[in-house]
Amino acid sequence: MFTLQKLTELYHEFDAALAQIIEQPGSPREVYEPISYILKIGGKRIRPAMAIAAFKLYQNETNTAIIQLAQAVEMFHNFTLLHDDIMDKSLLRRGKETVHIKWDESTAILCGDLLQIEVYEKLTSIGNLEILTLFNQMARELCEGQMNDMNFENRDQISNTDYLQMITQKTAVLLGFSMQSGALLGGASSEEAKKLYNLGIGIGVSFQLMDDYLDTFGEKAKVGKQIGGDILNQKKTFLWNEMWNHLDASDRDKITNMYAHFSDEEMIAHIKQKMIQTGADQKTLQLAQEHTIKNTALLASINASGDKTYLEEIMKMLSERES
Amino acid sequence: MFTLQKLTELYHEFDAALAQIIEQPGSPREVYEPISYILKIGGKRIRPAMAIAAFKLYQNETNTAIIQLAQAVEMFHNFTLLHDDIMDKSLLRRGKETVHIKWDESTAILCGDLLQIEVYEKLTSIGNLEILTLFNQMARELCEGQMNDMNFENRDQISNTDYLQMITQKTAVLLGFSMQSGALLGGASSEEAKKLYNLGIGIGVSFQLMDDYLDTFGEKAKVGKQIGGDILNQKKTFLWNEMWNHLDASDRDKITNMYAHFSDEEMIAHIKQKMIQTGADQKTLQLAQEHTIKNTALLASINASGDKTYLEEIMKMLSERES
Repeated sequence: MFTLQKLTELYHEFDAALAQIIEQPGSPREVYEPISYILKIGGKRIRPAMAIAAFKLYQNETNTAIIQLAQAVEMFHNFTLLHDDIMDKSLLRRGKETVHIKWDESTAILCGDLLQIEVYEKLTSIGNLEILTLFNQMARELCEGQMNDMNFENRDQISNTDYLQMITQKTAVLLGFSMQSGALLGGASSEEAKKLYNLGIGIGVSFQLMDDYLDTFGEKAKVGKQIGGDILNQKKTFLWNEMWNHLDASDRDKITNMYAHFSDEEMIAHIKQKMIQTGADQKTLQLAQEHTIKNTALLASINASGDKTYLEEIMKMLSERES
Repeated sequence: MFTLQKLTELYHEFDAALAQIIEQPGSPREVYEPISYILKIGGKRIRPAMAIAAFKLYQNETNTAIIQLAQAVEMFHNFTLLHDDIMDKSLLRRGKETVHIKWDESTAILCGDLLQIEVYEKLTSIGNLEILTLFNQMARELCEGQMNDMNFENRDQISNTDYLQMITQKTAVLLGFSMQSGALLGGASSEEAKKLYNLGIGIGVSFQLMDDYLDTFGEKAKVGKQIGGDILNQKKTFLWNEMWNHLDASDRDKITNMYAHFSDEEMIAHIKQKMIQTGADQKTLQLAQEHTIKNTALLASINASGDKTYLEEIMKMLSERES
């Protein structure tokens, strides 16, 4: 059995650094407590793991800079969640009340702004202008992706190209940045680091496709949230688009009318059936799988002196996940 | 007659740089247009002027770095306006609809986030880690100040010390940073630059006190907005606190009850009268004046080889302003 032993070791190494960013000792408490809260409620801590794993391709022992980078990417991810949850009017995050619900919107906006500044404090401490430049570029793309995502709500049909571009911007670039910068801090050449950026993008796209799939076809007990949320929000995921783009006009009209009159359970059952009928579920899994295969080949092509096991375990964990 | 000739020259110099940041050519347009809009609708452009004026204490000719800094501080100021206007539920900014009204709240949050990233792009381009560190420190204080300001709404009484600390954080530190960094880029020593930081703080405090005063005692035609907004919002400015802290319990109860039953005009007239009776108006002007005198002495103590006229004109303009 594959035990993800290296990954456990890596998370253990990040533990103290995580506790440090959760601390948030500043004043007034009203702006620091919600930041501590969002950082504390968890998640998979995938981004810091990826940054450290990329570093470990080139170095055996972590140093201050890579730990600061790992902290920065985890904090930045939480900053985006904080503000996205306001925009999406989400009530829950990882089973807990979102910040704008537990406190209020003004607090959530301000705490996000401060958390973003804390990210830059970490990045500035690393003292590497190339990494700062890459970060700015990535953060800009991520904002563009969030706007594209919001724009999709007002469009009837989204092409797969547009969807894949959006999730690249909104999800994958941060994974790409985490690995590229981790590699640079480890001493990788620019070209090698760029390969790790591309690997991060590949992992991010397949991650998001699986996320979409599990939101509809996952098991509630494993995923840890209500199944079918995307369907109820008519979220235009790859899975949805693959179904929608293969329905005829009468099927589409019928679905649109159903949303006004049918129960949540009935809608979820009907759309799931349509997704299966059109093969959208299989196409989603297949595309995720294709990315996983490409990612594995890309990792094999990377010529690093250090330990590849960390990254291999992360990729294995992500591609086999059921939650 | 004092014509502010140097200041005009300085603004002229900043014109092209301002046009450049207003351009915002990126895509999707939905996230760039509101940024362009807020940067375009104006304001006094005091912060870039202060940055350049501090630089000119040490250098005759501007260079790329100081112009980027001037752009960054103007952009950061507009970022704070964008998010503060959501938190304050403001409908108008400089006589125009605020971004969250003209577009929507999600757009305003996201555009603010992107504008903040653009600020860091400018700062990163300057390539000076000391300036980045000072900026992060200032931005953190500004967020703390915004939270203190929001906290004041839930408190009955605010001490002058607390109020002055809040406006220092919320307004003055950005002016301090603008001048300190401008001086550093000009070649000032750390100690000289720190003096300019302190001068910026002094200018900021006196600026905010005058702002509070003009909101109640200014002339509508000159100030360019409805007079008495702070009174109607029961905003706990220095002016308000100086009145409130000198009223007895029955006067306070009377005012609290009046807000539920009296018209806006009646409330404004009553509170103005109380401010005059308690001498709060004169105390506000006097404190602003004291800061102006201290600021002038501080500028005189600065030992710079370059031209002081720019900064003198800015200070004169701010202390004599009626709008």
